[in-house]
Amino acid sequence: MSQSVFGIDVGGTTVKLGHFDQAGHLLDKWEIPTDTSDSGRRILPDIAASVKARMNGRGEAAGVGIGVPGPVDQAGTVYKAVNLGWGVFNIAEMLGGLLGGIPVLAGNDANVAALGEMWQGGGAGYRNLVLVTLGTGVGGGIIRDGQILTGARGAAGEIGHTLVRDGETEVCNCGKKGCLEQYTSATGIARLARRKLAGTDRVSILRDQHISAKTVFDAVKEKDELAMEVAAEFGEILGRALAATANVVNPEAFVIGGGVSKAGNILFDYIVPYYNETVFHACREVAFELAILGNDAGIYGAAKLALDYGKTGS
Amino acid sequence: MSQSVFGIDVGGTTVKLGHFDQAGHLLDKWEIPTDTSDSGRRILPDIAASVKARMNGRGEAAGVGIGVPGPVDQAGTVYKAVNLGWGVFNIAEMLGGLLGGIPVLAGNDANVAALGEMWQGGGAGYRNLVLVTLGTGVGGGIIRDGQILTGARGAAGEIGHTLVRDGETEVCNCGKKGCLEQYTSATGIARLARRKLAGTDRVSILRDQHISAKTVFDAVKEKDELAMEVAAEFGEILGRALAATANVVNPEAFVIGGGVSKAGNILFDYIVPYYNETVFHACREVAFELAILGNDAGIYGAAKLALDYGKTGS
Repeated sequence: MSQSVFGIDVGGTTVKLGHFDQAGHLLDKWEIPTDTSDSGRRILPDIAASVKARMNGRGEAAGVGIGVPGPVDQAGTVYKAVNLGWGVFNIAEMLGGLLGGIPVLAGNDANVAALGEMWQGGGAGYRNLVLVTLGTGVGGGIIRDGQILTGARGAAGEIGHTLVRDGETEVCNCGKKGCLEQYTSATGIARLARRKLAGTDRVSILRDQHISAKTVFDAVKEKDELAMEVAAEFGEILGRALAATANVVNPEAFVIGGGVSKAGNILFDYIVPYYNETVFHACREVAFELAILGNDAGIYGAAKLALDYGKTGS
Repeated sequence: MSQSVFGIDVGGTTVKLGHFDQAGHLLDKWEIPTDTSDSGRRILPDIAASVKARMNGRGEAAGVGIGVPGPVDQAGTVYKAVNLGWGVFNIAEMLGGLLGGIPVLAGNDANVAALGEMWQGGGAGYRNLVLVTLGTGVGGGIIRDGQILTGARGAAGEIGHTLVRDGETEVCNCGKKGCLEQYTSATGIARLARRKLAGTDRVSILRDQHISAKTVFDAVKEKDELAMEVAAEFGEILGRALAATANVVNPEAFVIGGGVSKAGNILFDYIVPYYNETVFHACREVAFELAILGNDAGIYGAAKLALDYGKTGS
């Protein structure tokens, strides 16, 4: 056990922690609440205490990986994590200090989740992939040659806030209008459906029920025509955005995660035709996969960060 | 001289060759014609003969780098170079064989040019940048941590063929409609100007003269209103495309090259406002630079490929 690692995923309400052996087996996982009071200054001490409690009597850990909901560069500098109240500081140094000098590797949570899916998830077998998380928002993480593509300031892969439509009237969480997230997140899909329902009297099983990404794709599976039009609108916007992304990084695979991905392979029926129609021919050859680690992708990816450090020393 | 390297840039009509010392100084450069007859099978022997002639009596070269107008993966496999008549083959092995086993490193020409501009050009001082070449077409090359971002099949950075506008009636060279290249290449800018002139009777110094990207930006400098509207249309399309690219790879800098870049910094007056308006806030901080190596960017980048190989052994 002396060479185990910890993978940690810091969210706005809970911190997920995983204890892994050197072979990458998850030994144990648990959660602690995220204490965002007082600018989130108790979050790292709480994490350190929880990790130390698990280490007690089991020897040293080889390293800790941690995913953070904000941009993080390769040196471990966090450039604000608004949901946590964090400003700019070096999390690798701070958490490492709290843990008595154990190596700490940090990354953006979406990027770290992408690494997890590549390692033991829907992206297993690929070395160059893009994870697209369709949840409350739309996140992205890029893996290049088996490693996270960080970007200059840890903000690579933020495709959720790429402008995809002019004339949008509602404002995105980021403050702009017309972002990919506004149409292809779980909330975005529900919004597309509500808009379409409001603009027509046509019959649909979506009428008079709670509208969500789940009910929309359930209706698609029932061949509800209006729901299928919503899915086509979603698919056109996302397929084009993935094509634009492929032209930039030319991945082997796209892995689709987040709550929306529970709809399953039917998503690809709506995304892939638009992808193929718009992507540059040399970037066309790509696999579409579903993510499989769910909420554990972050702890897996964080553990992988720590294990890679142990192996390469870099 | 025994540790010199050669940087080679294969174009559709000429092959540019450069001889560099280990410190990266260009000792000599020259060109040979590109013989595309017979599926381009004489191109590599011609290059090998030219390199050998320069090496004669000056000892061995440490390596050769070569840029190719087509996708090339990290192992040196070319996936077709249509302009040369080439199919799929490993150029590193073939040219290395013709040169008696000297290491040969190969890359896509736009990617290699980006490496050159990072090394000794407009991108000097940056380790993460995107070179955008606005010439007859629009090419792109991405440098990440000082190295080319190749992608799964050497097609990373092909932003010229990203769909940016619906409803386009003319067909792009790639076979699709509405590509970035159709509006922001030298020919694309001229096309925007001709369309605008045809749709109005307004006075413009562009009327009744040859329309090119150069005459358009010359007219912009004269404050010609119609030309400024063309520049704004160009800037909006390119600024948005660069913002989308920044959201994917989060570079430190964009370096603008190609014939259009001769217009100078005035380009940025039209690109940057649209970039800032649409980019995700965490990716906003970026420098805009002009390329400075011109047609030599390819031989510089190719030489850098060879020198990096010599240094790292990987």
